[in-house]
Amino acid sequence: MYVLNFKEREASEVPLEGATKTTMRWLIGRRTGAKTYAMRYFEMQPGGKIPIHSHIEEHEIFVLNGEAKVLGECEVDVARKDDVVFIPADHPHGYDNTEGREVFSFICVIPLLGEG
Amino acid sequence: MYVLNFKEREASEVPLEGATKTTMRWLIGRRTGAKTYAMRYFEMQPGGKIPIHSHIEEHEIFVLNGEAKVLGECEVDVARKDDVVFIPADHPHGYDNTEGREVFSFICVIPLLGEG
Repeated sequence: MYVLNFKEREASEVPLEGATKTTMRWLIGRRTGAKTYAMRYFEMQPGGKIPIHSHIEEHEIFVLNGEAKVLGECEVDVARKDDVVFIPADHPHGYDNTEGREVFSFICVIPLLGEG
Repeated sequence: MYVLNFKEREASEVPLEGATKTTMRWLIGRRTGAKTYAMRYFEMQPGGKIPIHSHIEEHEIFVLNGEAKVLGECEVDVARKDDVVFIPADHPHGYDNTEGREVFSFICVIPLLGEG
C-alpha cells in the first residue's frame, strides 16, 4: 500500500507519433504491484495534441483540469474538468488542446496485457 | 465511447457496514461496456468514515479534493488532493474524515471479478 503525490513520479513525453506538448507519468503499474490495470497521469499544454489512434487497450479517463476536443466518433466532442471518458477497445480516439488556453490534465487507466 | 460529467451518475450511500456520510457513483462499469475494471467516484463529507476492511479487489485511487486519514498499514497516514493511493488485494484499508473540514473526494478503480 502506498500514498504519494503524482508529482513524485517522473514525467516523460508521450511516445505516440504526432503527439505534441503532452507528458505522462506512471502512477500505478506493474513495477509497483499492479496486476490487472495501470493508472497514468497526462498533462497536455495549450497547443498540445494526441492525434487519433486506436489499440486493443480500453481507456477509463477522468479529467482533472481544463478541456480539450475529443477526436473520434463520440456524441460529445469536448471533455472538460470533472468529465469521465470511456473508450472501448479498438475505438479510434485522440485529444486536441491546440485552441485551448488551459492545461488539459487527466487520469487514464489501461489494462495490463500480456507479459510485457 | 462516451463522455459525461460525473454528476450525471446517481450517488448512493456506500453499502459497507460502518461507513458514514459517504456516497459512491459508478462512472464506468460492466453495464456501460467495461470488461476488466470499473471506475467509481466517492465523496466523504466532513465527519465521514469508511472503517478498516479488506477484500480481494485491489484499489487504484486518485484524490480529487480534501484530505483524510488513511487507515491500515501504510508509510503515509494521510491522503490529500493530487495523491495516488495503491491498495493491493487483501490489504486492510479505510479512510477517516471525522476530523476534516473539507469534502474528501476520490476516484477508485477496482477489478471486475467473476460473472456478477
